[in-house]
Amino acid sequence: MPLPTDVQRLFRAPNFATMSTLGPDGSPQTSIMWVEVEGDEILFSTLKSRQKAANLTRDPRVSVLVQDPDRPYEYVEVRGTAALAEDTGRTVANDLSLAYAGQPFRSEPPDHVRLVVRVSPRKILKYLGSGQVVRLD
Amino acid sequence: MPLPTDVQRLFRAPNFATMSTLGPDGSPQTSIMWVEVEGDEILFSTLKSRQKAANLTRDPRVSVLVQDPDRPYEYVEVRGTAALAEDTGRTVANDLSLAYAGQPFRSEPPDHVRLVVRVSPRKILKYLGSGQVVRLD
Repeated sequence: MPLPTDVQRLFRAPNFATMSTLGPDGSPQTSIMWVEVEGDEILFSTLKSRQKAANLTRDPRVSVLVQDPDRPYEYVEVRGTAALAEDTGRTVANDLSLAYAGQPFRSEPPDHVRLVVRVSPRKILKYLGSGQVVRLD
Repeated sequence: MPLPTDVQRLFRAPNFATMSTLGPDGSPQTSIMWVEVEGDEILFSTLKSRQKAANLTRDPRVSVLVQDPDRPYEYVEVRGTAALAEDTGRTVANDLSLAYAGQPFRSEPPDHVRLVVRVSPRKILKYLGSGQVVRLD
């Protein structure tokens, strides 16, 4: 599914994203994440040891949200499916750190396995405030 | 469960909260919401006709997150259970509108039933950046 212009714009800028995953009992859990776009996928970085990595391995369904910093009553929500793979050389983590923090990613012990989370959109919603929603997919 | 000082501070200021609920198929859905605190509960306003109201009626498990605007790598996540009741006189909606928008809540057709969502915390997590998390409950 192609990512619409509005989604590209919000997800390519260094805006924080909120990611919701499902815990072991199916209840929602939420994190704030750095985010970038590659092709039609939305990319995140996490450690294999994190709860969200375990959650997405068990159940890949995810909701990702970015608020428009210039129009805070507007935001985009992407619902989709996550695939996890090792972030070899911590390339994605480093790209994200350069974009958000302006410096290379912090050093981590080499035995800490860092993953790329790639979200394939299934449904894309744009919220315009006062309860107005449009589907972008 | 008493709400710790950090939670009170973030949720009482007019910061936007992210609320995650479970859709009909159990997948996560996310919204941005106004929020306030009353006693040890976290309050939101929504219309009965909204998807999130249907979600919480079906499965009351919810995750609520507020980012610290002064320290954006810090945020609080509250996981808990939501109870819904009619917002008689739109009192809660009006309080929220005064706090966030500085003006009374917009008029709505009287047949649009507005609800108060009251979240009772079950687990409270404070994220300090770089993957550090502390439980506050």
